[in-house]
Amino acid sequence: MEASLLVIGDEVVSGLVKEINITLLSRILEKYGIKVRMGLCVRDHPDEIKKGLDVLMKQTELVILTGGLGPTPDDITLKTVSEYFNLSLVESPELLSSLPCKLRTQAMVPEGAEYFKNPYGTAPGFLIEKEKNRIILLPGVPSEAEAILPEILEYMGLKEEKIKVVIRTFEIPEVRILEVLSAVLSPQEIKGLSFLPGNDGVRIWIKEGDVEDIRERIYDVLEDYIYGEGDETLEKVVGRMLKERGFTLACAESCTGGLLMDLITNVPGSSEYFMGGIVSYSNESKIRELGVRRESLEKHGAVSEAVAKEMAQGVRELYGTDFGLSTTGIAGPTGGTGEKPVGLVWMGISARDGTRAQRRVFKGKRRDVKEKAVYFVLNMLRKYILDLERTSG
Amino acid sequence: MEASLLVIGDEVVSGLVKEINITLLSRILEKYGIKVRMGLCVRDHPDEIKKGLDVLMKQTELVILTGGLGPTPDDITLKTVSEYFNLSLVESPELLSSLPCKLRTQAMVPEGAEYFKNPYGTAPGFLIEKEKNRIILLPGVPSEAEAILPEILEYMGLKEEKIKVVIRTFEIPEVRILEVLSAVLSPQEIKGLSFLPGNDGVRIWIKEGDVEDIRERIYDVLEDYIYGEGDETLEKVVGRMLKERGFTLACAESCTGGLLMDLITNVPGSSEYFMGGIVSYSNESKIRELGVRRESLEKHGAVSEAVAKEMAQGVRELYGTDFGLSTTGIAGPTGGTGEKPVGLVWMGISARDGTRAQRRVFKGKRRDVKEKAVYFVLNMLRKYILDLERTSG
Repeated sequence: MEASLLVIGDEVVSGLVKEINITLLSRILEKYGIKVRMGLCVRDHPDEIKKGLDVLMKQTELVILTGGLGPTPDDITLKTVSEYFNLSLVESPELLSSLPCKLRTQAMVPEGAEYFKNPYGTAPGFLIEKEKNRIILLPGVPSEAEAILPEILEYMGLKEEKIKVVIRTFEIPEVRILEVLSAVLSPQEIKGLSFLPGNDGVRIWIKEGDVEDIRERIYDVLEDYIYGEGDETLEKVVGRMLKERGFTLACAESCTGGLLMDLITNVPGSSEYFMGGIVSYSNESKIRELGVRRESLEKHGAVSEAVAKEMAQGVRELYGTDFGLSTTGIAGPTGGTGEKPVGLVWMGISARDGTRAQRRVFKGKRRDVKEKAVYFVLNMLRKYILDLERTSG
Repeated sequence: MEASLLVIGDEVVSGLVKEINITLLSRILEKYGIKVRMGLCVRDHPDEIKKGLDVLMKQTELVILTGGLGPTPDDITLKTVSEYFNLSLVESPELLSSLPCKLRTQAMVPEGAEYFKNPYGTAPGFLIEKEKNRIILLPGVPSEAEAILPEILEYMGLKEEKIKVVIRTFEIPEVRILEVLSAVLSPQEIKGLSFLPGNDGVRIWIKEGDVEDIRERIYDVLEDYIYGEGDETLEKVVGRMLKERGFTLACAESCTGGLLMDLITNVPGSSEYFMGGIVSYSNESKIRELGVRRESLEKHGAVSEAVAKEMAQGVRELYGTDFGLSTTGIAGPTGGTGEKPVGLVWMGISARDGTRAQRRVFKGKRRDVKEKAVYFVLNMLRKYILDLERTSG
């Protein structure tokens, strides 16, 4: 089945609110075997919404609208769609009584439509069937849309499926991947791939062909760079590796300022292996909490191999964990020098058998530098654990 | 001027990569006085790209494409657009020599088009003028697109302008804002507003009418809830308040796991007032680093008023700062009980004159609970500083 998405809201096409519904909803639809042909964002204006419907109803039988279902006067989606399909709006007493406050606008249902209650907010979702077209209406708040859509798809008789293979690599650029793969894949097979670069590495998506066979040949030449597939983020993979082996982790962050620990703790169950850590945004904190030597700071500066190593070792000892990770660098936009440019980060890893650090200069803005450093140090830990097993095995 | 956006990539409409270019580019265009009419996401297929161009070229004279300009074979935008406009592709020796490696595909320019070098990657941006239409091509990597677009707009003779007023509120729901505003604004004026709810509060966007006058009347009734305007996030506002008064801050995070400090340190210059902090993801860490009493943990549990207060006070004393903030809660999806449900968070603030904590139960998924708690505690600090001045002044 194919679908198209209509995202409604002035805020989206003016950049005031992050448009993430296309991503979220496409990902859910993909799992239910529905391919999204196009996603269109329009303003909260009846003409624009109707124009969007005109374009998308020609593309696919299933059209999913999101946004503009709330209680305020700028929310005109329900009214506009009802007009478009010539349906009257009827108040549902059952819906009204289920609402925390008596918001009549949130209890209106287009005649003949099914409604689906919202677990997190007041705006329900709707399913309208009109001749061969099916129209789904979802609230614009992403967590609400995400909660309601699967229920509607299951009501439509669909089931969650396994998605195609996406292979996640780290520390190898897109161009180099392409070179390496050209040796084992035909030009036609390479055309069926997508390369998706991000701060967490390059993902290779096998869209066409004999997926299993291509997957195997990609592993043959890229295995050292592959850390996971599909939804397996670096933080999930590293978390699982730690959990399976009964290892524990603590972190000492300087330039990444808490992002590393934020990512680690986004994984449910992370409290089993993650014990905590320190954000040391000043030299004094590095000395006091982490036992970094004043001498190292004075001689080498806070952004140095010595300090990265002492931070990693200090936090490991403080928390009594198997591993300690550290970051210290210059996230920018200012603070760089000729010798230590913006983007320079030293990242440390400490284990019972020793401590080491690596240096990188990351390109991009403050946020990019933080993200790149965090994924790099997570990958250092992943490789460290693998090496441990290779040498002991 | 009006524009429309065409985002190209299978990865976007399948939910594999976060579509953030509509947000980013719309925000930049808005600043240059360009209103985006619609944003369309399509697959990496020549027919889909051409269909998208057909739709958008009818909407606006300026059409901006992003994605599919990279070096790999799935990148077909440049070729497809050149075909669409019947332009041949010519290798630019100047562009080729500027590339770090000799990627011939990244040095091709449609005849008559201007190219704009990419500071962060290999794919340049392009400006094609074809009769009354102007077409801008940008790489799909957001930081790269964001870096190139302003240069092209300035080449086109445009200048950055001030954007319309967006007022940021916290701790008041959308529906209550609407009630309050109905007393001071006409129905017509309310229709010219958009209400944008998020985990960082509700933003009110004045889209039409006498902006200054409406803004003033909104302040009259909502002032206590307003923390900033436009791009002034809570972390920026709180950072500025601390910096201006010479105050310092440290944080102790449990359930938010580093997100609070990550947000604070996303603000350039935050090292002037932010000294660092502790992520205490275990009871032992709360006792050891923060001086939380074992008795409090045993008697009240880690998620309690007593522990939130001891964490905030402990981190303030450890870092010798003016303020200490803390979070301790149940981010979910598991770990809740009848008495302490998922989403329950205690948030503490400690200052020289005392320590207090507040309790909230936040709705949503793990990430939402983390975000809502982090903004709540930042706002506690903002209000605390304001109260300090009101009582002393």
